[in-house]
Amino acid sequence: MTPPALTLHPDRALPADPGTRAVAREILAATLDLPIVSMHGHVDVDVLERDEPFSDPARLLVVPDHYLVRMLVSQGVPHAALGVPRLDGGPVETDPRAVWRTFASHWHLFRGTPTRYWLEHVLVEVFGVDVRPSAETADAVYDRIAEALDRPDHRPLALFDRFGIEILATTDHATATLDDHAALAARGYRDRIVPTFRPDALLRIDRPGWSGDVALLEERSGVPVTSYRGFVAALEQRRAAFLERGARATDHGHLGADTTPMDDASAERLVTSALRAAAGGPPVDAADARAFEAHMLFQMARMSSEDGLVMQLHPGVLRDHDRTAAAVLGPDLGYDIPVAAEFTRALRPVLEAFGHHPGFRMVAFTVDEDTYSRELAPLAGVYPALRLGAPWWFLDTPDGLRRYREAVTDTAGFANTTGFVDDTRAFCSIPARHDLARRVDAGYLARLVVEHRLDLDEALDTAVDLAYRFPREAYARRAGSATGPGATVPEPVSRGREHA
Amino acid sequence: MTPPALTLHPDRALPADPGTRAVAREILAATLDLPIVSMHGHVDVDVLERDEPFSDPARLLVVPDHYLVRMLVSQGVPHAALGVPRLDGGPVETDPRAVWRTFASHWHLFRGTPTRYWLEHVLVEVFGVDVRPSAETADAVYDRIAEALDRPDHRPLALFDRFGIEILATTDHATATLDDHAALAARGYRDRIVPTFRPDALLRIDRPGWSGDVALLEERSGVPVTSYRGFVAALEQRRAAFLERGARATDHGHLGADTTPMDDASAERLVTSALRAAAGGPPVDAADARAFEAHMLFQMARMSSEDGLVMQLHPGVLRDHDRTAAAVLGPDLGYDIPVAAEFTRALRPVLEAFGHHPGFRMVAFTVDEDTYSRELAPLAGVYPALRLGAPWWFLDTPDGLRRYREAVTDTAGFANTTGFVDDTRAFCSIPARHDLARRVDAGYLARLVVEHRLDLDEALDTAVDLAYRFPREAYARRAGSATGPGATVPEPVSRGREHA
Amino acid sequence: MTPPALTLHPDRALPADPGTRAVAREILAATLDLPIVSMHGHVDVDVLERDEPFSDPARLLVVPDHYLVRMLVSQGVPHAALGVPRLDGGPVETDPRAVWRTFASHWHLFRGTPTRYWLEHVLVEVFGVDVRPSAETADAVYDRIAEALDRPDHRPLALFDRFGIEILATTDHATATLDDHAALAARGYRDRIVPTFRPDALLRIDRPGWSGDVALLEERSGVPVTSYRGFVAALEQRRAAFLERGARATDHGHLGADTTPMDDASAERLVTSALRAAAGGPPVDAADARAFEAHMLFQMARMSSEDGLVMQLHPGVLRDHDRTAAAVLGPDLGYDIPVAAEFTRALRPVLEAFGHHPGFRMVAFTVDEDTYSRELAPLAGVYPALRLGAPWWFLDTPDGLRRYREAVTDTAGFANTTGFVDDTRAFCSIPARHDLARRVDAGYLARLVVEHRLDLDEALDTAVDLAYRFPREAYARRAGSATGPGATVPEPVSRGREHA
Repeated sequence: MTPPALTLHPDRALPADPGTRAVAREILAATLDLPIVSMHGHVDVDVLERDEPFSDPARLLVVPDHYLVRMLVSQGVPHAALGVPRLDGGPVETDPRAVWRTFASHWHLFRGTPTRYWLEHVLVEVFGVDVRPSAETADAVYDRIAEALDRPDHRPLALFDRFGIEILATTDHATATLDDHAALAARGYRDRIVPTFRPDALLRIDRPGWSGDVALLEERSGVPVTSYRGFVAALEQRRAAFLERGARATDHGHLGADTTPMDDASAERLVTSALRAAAGGPPVDAADARAFEAHMLFQMARMSSEDGLVMQLHPGVLRDHDRTAAAVLGPDLGYDIPVAAEFTRALRPVLEAFGHHPGFRMVAFTVDEDTYSRELAPLAGVYPALRLGAPWWFLDTPDGLRRYREAVTDTAGFANTTGFVDDTRAFCSIPARHDLARRVDAGYLARLVVEHRLDLDEALDTAVDLAYRFPREAYARRAGSATGPGATVPEPVSRGREHA
Repeated sequence: MTPPALTLHPDRALPADPGTRAVAREILAATLDLPIVSMHGHVDVDVLERDEPFSDPARLLVVPDHYLVRMLVSQGVPHAALGVPRLDGGPVETDPRAVWRTFASHWHLFRGTPTRYWLEHVLVEVFGVDVRPSAETADAVYDRIAEALDRPDHRPLALFDRFGIEILATTDHATATLDDHAALAARGYRDRIVPTFRPDALLRIDRPGWSGDVALLEERSGVPVTSYRGFVAALEQRRAAFLERGARATDHGHLGADTTPMDDASAERLVTSALRAAAGGPPVDAADARAFEAHMLFQMARMSSEDGLVMQLHPGVLRDHDRTAAAVLGPDLGYDIPVAAEFTRALRPVLEAFGHHPGFRMVAFTVDEDTYSRELAPLAGVYPALRLGAPWWFLDTPDGLRRYREAVTDTAGFANTTGFVDDTRAFCSIPARHDLARRVDAGYLARLVVEHRLDLDEALDTAVDLAYRFPREAYARRAGSATGPGATVPEPVSRGREHA
Repeated sequence: MTPPALTLHPDRALPADPGTRAVAREILAATLDLPIVSMHGHVDVDVLERDEPFSDPARLLVVPDHYLVRMLVSQGVPHAALGVPRLDGGPVETDPRAVWRTFASHWHLFRGTPTRYWLEHVLVEVFGVDVRPSAETADAVYDRIAEALDRPDHRPLALFDRFGIEILATTDHATATLDDHAALAARGYRDRIVPTFRPDALLRIDRPGWSGDVALLEERSGVPVTSYRGFVAALEQRRAAFLERGARATDHGHLGADTTPMDDASAERLVTSALRAAAGGPPVDAADARAFEAHMLFQMARMSSEDGLVMQLHPGVLRDHDRTAAAVLGPDLGYDIPVAAEFTRALRPVLEAFGHHPGFRMVAFTVDEDTYSRELAPLAGVYPALRLGAPWWFLDTPDGLRRYREAVTDTAGFANTTGFVDDTRAFCSIPARHDLARRVDAGYLARLVVEHRLDLDEALDTAVDLAYRFPREAYARRAGSATGPGATVPEPVSRGREHA
């Protein structure tokens, strides 16, 4: 029997109603060929810098994709069978073809999921696969991909260009050397591959590895960290180094969004305790550590208002839900689970202080959809500094993207959102994710047109905003300013555009 | 170039699917010409009583509309540029034409928002504007509106009649003189423009201005407030005065929905403390003040069960999120932000006591959509006293209204909702809001018909219920009763209608 | 005037868009005739065992249906008028025809509700009614049903066969004799009518009736309960007895989902306290009782991992919201109201311990839709032991079922859900509920096909999964295993299917 074909329908993910679909097609045509602006991602910069061929289909597409691994695990496929390495170096499947077969024979599990949508796009568009993956077709599909990977036009930077990526932001530890970025800059990628400053690990003073990270911070920054003042100065130095390398933003993933500041004396006391704990003293109290984290988020906002780095915040995820799995396999394997989020009270300190500051820009993400219409859209709909990030993580799906627009547009409009931000570590799926977002936005805008709530010329213009202009503008480095907290109410600088 | 036209399409906000739209049109035809029942609004009664021409387009449509102002501010337009007055009298733009130009040149920000829907309706229907607002057309549109405002047929009461408003409820401080209502009553508006009793300020005994309000309460009621007993008696007197002037309802906006009563001795102790604090004694504890607020909500329910005023409750909004903005500009400027709401536990005391009381009617509103299917529909679907208010504030939008029906109808049906309630302070937008609600309800009902879940004759009847009969019935003054708490279980008076 | 006809349209509850509907029809055809797998219900086994004719239309369809009773009560119909018995034996309507007339004359209240959908199905399909219920048609409809009930083909077991029920799980107190099940087994229903183990009452050690239930537990199990050890052993004995009678699952309805275990010494101390309280000692502290409940949920998971009974958990409902109503009328009359639920933290202890255990299966239900995309889909999408139950209670409605698929499929796929589970005590409505679920799933799958997100052959296969294969597989007794907590990470047994 001929295996079912794998194709990408030109109307995929567009609305079912024929009239709406026709309008959506017209809107989509305005964005499909726009460059990709990828301002928040987790692609390993080292892969781009080395620019070596990807090793094999399994290690490229299966093993590192936690969406995919978690689904297979949830249906009883062992991590070992998927070649996911153990921290203790214990035995796991090492034959990429065997891993691929296991994956392909479970293709049915991905029905109706965004993972399936992205994979289809990657298989067809990037590798020219034309049959549906299955136990039967696993080898043929594997061979097709492996062949492509051998060719120079499938090396990372070749794909980077072929994908039409105008700019890609990576995510980098605050203590990163940024050498890879420097090397890429020397080869002409200075404004196309930029780092993002991620200091989370340093802000949790009760983490076991904290003192090691602080030592690294001292080394990288050249600033001794023997006090809160030193700690802050070292972080400021690193932000400056990131800026030097073209960084546009910082990235903060905390369990909660609390931004309550403390006075300097209290902060000093806690840093001193943490340094003493590192030297064998009593451990820092967990509640104190959380309070310090909130304080440091406030400090990060203050620094952003001064240096113009966009501050990205994505709270509400309990990391490593299964601690045994984390101990055996490490983090980022699909055991991070959302909890209810709260923004209204949590962001009040930062927004009261910097919400009208012309130098400050915060982008907030959530995996708790309840907060869209209840908290985030109302906040972004009044504070000039705040933009809503795109649907994040579990929510950047056909229905998730649609629900987002339906929930936030009423109160925040379009211009208070960032447009699409992809947030992926799967390099080959970047075009697929932007493709999907452009389709869903086209569908949403088409519905507004068909329901006579928007004219077509406006929908076309807005589609380009969402796909291209807004992410560029949202992550443009803010002009710094010496204006203090609150001073800009009621006279912040106008950022309105003149429109016909 | 000719600027784009501004028109209202007869099918606006109806479902995209042609078959469903055809049914929706038929259903809409049954309600479009019905009178407007506007039972919860914030139009200033003084404007109606004076009945003077509106001064200019900016002061009528831009400056006082917090939906509109907040969107412009969120994109960096200063409050001052919009002519929003400062409490300190500091300089702001005073030329209405300049304000209007700023607004018109940012028209694109409102794409996809309900504000845009309402504004289009007002511009076209009330003022005959026929071009899309923009920097280019700003002056022409301004002139067109200004011209209309000069004509006697655009004075408040002329518009009131032209809008087909059968009855309009204003919102009035518990200490209001109600003189304007008396004057309007004398001119024949007794049952068409009615006050609503809003005692919030008096129930927060830790508010800075509380003692001043209490002094006013004493003056208006003629009841000395030197004790809890006196406080309650004075409030009861004022409710009677409101009833005298045709009031149908009370209105309560608290941060939480807690209705836990306390014993009289505790209440007495707290009122005494508050009076002492006003006279220079130690301040009332915040937790005590919140407990007293909950107790007074319970008391308000008790009073409603006796005097038949409908009790409206809309909790879950943190007022004046940016305290600097509030200090500079005052309240109600778009800085009120929702928080998660809870009704199941919070309303238990009141519903256990009065939920089956034939004299009691509570209407609950929320800005937390999560509570629709989880708490409010289940509660309203069993307690005879409770009705669900219409989608409120950030939620009275095309998609918000639709989500509301989809979330509550399953468990509460239609008859446990109030039908549409507009909640606006923008007088000219009242018809637009009812127009939108009728369209969305027509679309929802049409879907039920097309999915063969409802017959067309039933949909037509229900559409009239939602647009007209239910708001009238929900806000009809309840017949008082001496029946005590709980006594009406299991035998409350039947309020079922006989239907063919 | 001829009363309006009552018919079931073949396209009912299918999507409005004609193209999508055509595909949905094709998908629905694949499932409409499949047997019914009803793994979680509340039909009284005694009714099946006795197999006597149902007494009358009111006692069959009105009085025991709390969906229906609560809606009538919410609109002022007294419980007494509906013949709902009082615990004190006080007078209520006893004429079934009078009760029926009251119900029929309020038919309009059910517009748009699932109750209406189910009732229409029952009236037309089971009883051949062909006119819309109303005051006018009440008697004719009553007579038609009464006539049918007199016939042998409308006895419980005849209907059971006619409904095509392959297997029905009842819900039974942990202390049930299971005699009815034994009798039915003797008549050939051993694998078709099975009990479900529900120990809730025994796990709340501060309940007034707890000691009586413990006495019964001792009697049924033959195990003396004088200690925590004895308590656990007695429960284990009862689980074995249920297994003996064909049980597939346990059922747990707690206010919260907390599963935090305590050490044995603490558990022993609490059981001893509870036994002393029963003997006149001081009452058990409420917080201690809640902690014990959480501990026992953990123990139930442990037992499930050993004996293979599927563990069903449905938290988040505050029972008997109106305590007066409960005191007068008893439980289960519509006064159970949802509260916000939390799963991520609450299930962590159980999932860390048994989430990868091949012998453990948990099925989680919720009435808080917020938890679908935020917590339950992410958890079920990674832990092999966890499956998402179908939309439950207030949510098994046309729109509720659709929202569920839209919210969970992205992250959990289809295979991590149980397929449809009906959860009804209204025997005659079982086919109606499965009919509705099959229609809504067909509509959802059709949309995926029309949006080119799924091929038609896959949709057809998935429809059968959801209607038939998944509920069978989800409630298949797990193979027990001695593997300890955590030991199965990262190598649980594969449960993937091979698919073409």
